[in-house]
Amino acid sequence: MEGAKVDTTRLPERKGPALSTSLRPLSATGMDLLFRNARTASTFTNTKVTDAQIKQIYDLVRNGPTSFNGQHLRIVLVRTKEARERLVHHMIEPNQAKTSAAPLVAILAADLKFTEHLAELYPPFPMAGDLFFSEAPVREEEAIFNASIQIGYFILAVRAVGLAAGPMGGFDAEGLAKEFFGDGRFKPLLVCNIGKPGKDAWFPDRLPRLDYKHAVSTL
Amino acid sequence: MEGAKVDTTRLPERKGPALSTSLRPLSATGMDLLFRNARTASTFTNTKVTDAQIKQIYDLVRNGPTSFNGQHLRIVLVRTKEARERLVHHMIEPNQAKTSAAPLVAILAADLKFTEHLAELYPPFPMAGDLFFSEAPVREEEAIFNASIQIGYFILAVRAVGLAAGPMGGFDAEGLAKEFFGDGRFKPLLVCNIGKPGKDAWFPDRLPRLDYKHAVSTL
Repeated sequence: MEGAKVDTTRLPERKGPALSTSLRPLSATGMDLLFRNARTASTFTNTKVTDAQIKQIYDLVRNGPTSFNGQHLRIVLVRTKEARERLVHHMIEPNQAKTSAAPLVAILAADLKFTEHLAELYPPFPMAGDLFFSEAPVREEEAIFNASIQIGYFILAVRAVGLAAGPMGGFDAEGLAKEFFGDGRFKPLLVCNIGKPGKDAWFPDRLPRLDYKHAVSTL
Repeated sequence: MEGAKVDTTRLPERKGPALSTSLRPLSATGMDLLFRNARTASTFTNTKVTDAQIKQIYDLVRNGPTSFNGQHLRIVLVRTKEARERLVHHMIEPNQAKTSAAPLVAILAADLKFTEHLAELYPPFPMAGDLFFSEAPVREEEAIFNASIQIGYFILAVRAVGLAAGPMGGFDAEGLAKEFFGDGRFKPLLVCNIGKPGKDAWFPDRLPRLDYKHAVSTL
């Protein structure tokens, strides 16, 4: 994660006047897969999650919008037995067994010094980093906010490739940060199990949801 | 947005042993729509965004996972001319014209007192609010973090119903909070234009993205 290595590959673009009418809703199957039928998994099969699958997930995530295109999220894949043990040590007790057993665990962190790359990532306004984020508290709040939005993209991208996510916020954040990010540049925000859902992967019933009238208001 | 009114409607569930093999990847068309071809829109057509569309968006968003199922995000739709003017007043100058012109603008905010509803939303552990979030700074950080993740779901859900999102972080956060959320319970995090993309809705080229090796590391 050192140095700004920016990929200038351009994806195919929707262009021209057909654009405004070219957006069709996602299929019902797609809405079910990502949102309506998707669940947080607590158990997984033994099927390995490959680097190719994580590359596909990242290829989706990186496209999502961030402020000044800052792309504040960093992903650490915990693959070795030794690293997994170091991680489990910092999880709260109810999360330890599933963190040990999951086919893959990722630490999702914010790059608190994202401004190093901002001129390269946002050519239309290369001074943004110096002008708006020179103060550490403002810069760090910006990094955490945008990386958190990207965590939303990440969880849905895991589902988009046909896997299940098991996000966990229950860990000793300070201990985990020291263990894996000694210099303080990266702040861990979430730990996420990834894999094919296993036996009794989730609660039988979906937990209740706030209704529209409670969560949405109109002025 | 007063009082906990919890929707106990249950969606169809994936159950039983077929589950682990029942997750198929999203179609390439779906991946393009939500991630790979999707862009932040700066202009929109005049087509109205209906309450039915927002209900569909919210029905997707509310399914996404949050810590202890807290569902910290609140959405304020700015529909009247008078409310729109009050909002535009707090946007930074480069965002004012597009905020005025968009078919619909939403203020996305975090409920800093989400713990009021937590026992109802997370029946397996109704004491979570009292045990973990009794201190205001911890509670507020939790609300902002989870509402930010939900903003990620929201932006992708807008796209999922065939609309384009124009998220904007450039506003006077304190002024906007006082204007719309006088009692300090709700903290505005993002303002988002919503509609069908219009003429020259985005930069001709997608901005550069960090490559896999920069954003993802393996231990």
